Amino acid sequence: MEFSSKLLENAVYEMSQLPGIGKRTALRLVLHLLKQSERQTEQLSSALTVLRSTVRFCTNCHNISDTELCEICANPKRDGTLVCVVEDIRDVMAIENTGQYRGKYHVLGGKISPMEGIGPQDLTIASLVNKVKQGEINELIFALSSTMEGDTTNFYIFKQIEGLEVRTSTIARGIAVGDELEYADEVTLGRSILNRVPFEGSLRTN
Amino acid sequence: MEFSSKLLENAVYEMSQLPGIGKRTALRLVLHLLKQSERQTEQLSSALTVLRSTVRFCTNCHNISDTELCEICANPKRDGTLVCVVEDIRDVMAIENTGQYRGKYHVLGGKISPMEGIGPQDLTIASLVNKVKQGEINELIFALSSTMEGDTTNFYIFKQIEGLEVRTSTIARGIAVGDELEYADEVTLGRSILNRVPFEGSLRTN
Repeated sequence: MEFSSKLLENAVYEMSQLPGIGKRTALRLVLHLLKQSERQTEQLSSALTVLRSTVRFCTNCHNISDTELCEICANPKRDGTLVCVVEDIRDVMAIENTGQYRGKYHVLGGKISPMEGIGPQDLTIASLVNKVKQGEINELIFALSSTMEGDTTNFYIFKQIEGLEVRTSTIARGIAVGDELEYADEVTLGRSILNRVPFEGSLRTN
Repeated sequence: MEFSSKLLENAVYEMSQLPGIGKRTALRLVLHLLKQSERQTEQLSSALTVLRSTVRFCTNCHNISDTELCEICANPKRDGTLVCVVEDIRDVMAIENTGQYRGKYHVLGGKISPMEGIGPQDLTIASLVNKVKQGEINELIFALSSTMEGDTTNFYIFKQIEGLEVRTSTIARGIAVGDELEYADEVTLGRSILNRVPFEGSLRTN
């Protein structure tokens, strides 16, 4: 791409560094900003830089937070003995949206992935193991994605806390509510039969 | 979406103001920036604000430019008597990429669209008519998109310069090179037959 302006080229280059944004999309976005008021660009830039430079993570669960303890960890009504282990803050948001969970979280910040050069020391596993050792947690719920990396991470943590007094569980895998059986993949369908629940249990809504 | 941090929410909100970027994509992009070095966010922000605050448009063709006259307008080898009228700077880039065009451009900045509240006064039509009136242009090539809005804009400009000494043409519409006839739409195929060119002409490559 030949640009008529170095400033434009630079802005498009920086924009195209974002994941999933190619050069053409970046150009479209930058030209859109040029058509809007200068204030909009300033607001976008400052929102990003302020977030990036002052971002804080909850010292307990490692979720992004504006305060030392995030709202969930600071909430005395949440059950601190039940901890849900997730990869990412998006998973926290997804689970919170269900309104079904009253425990706390632990955000790992990713999963073990040798292919991407992410080892256990890059995640917040040590801090999780520490919390378990202090004996205040009764149950850990693993809610990582069911991929090779997710399973590896689950297993690594499981090994680290072996022998400590804590129950572990993983979220149920099965056919999604509203899905047709005939379109489900075999692994999911197989697991949903193995892990069937008593009929009365399936009627619970919370 | 419930955010654990106001700063995060604000950054996601600003990002989702960009066209084609929803809340989820915005969150993904912002979280990506948080995983990168602080410098990357700074570079993105400053590239955008610098561009937006110091952007200049070529005084002749209204293309984005770092100088008063853009490189194309300032180039004495380009034929100033031939002017290609386009909507957008992306169209200039697309035509420049072909390497086939040695004339200059006139960037309208959009097309007349009553639905979006864009009238002739929002575009650089007056400046184009002025240039034509000065009598230095022999031919205007309309290269707008062949939509209702594009046709309206073409016609509006055509009416404005009626009676002035200038030839007008539009780019050829037809079957794209490499396309199969059977998949072409009727309008395009019909036009490509009406506007057929002598066989020797079709062998020209520049």
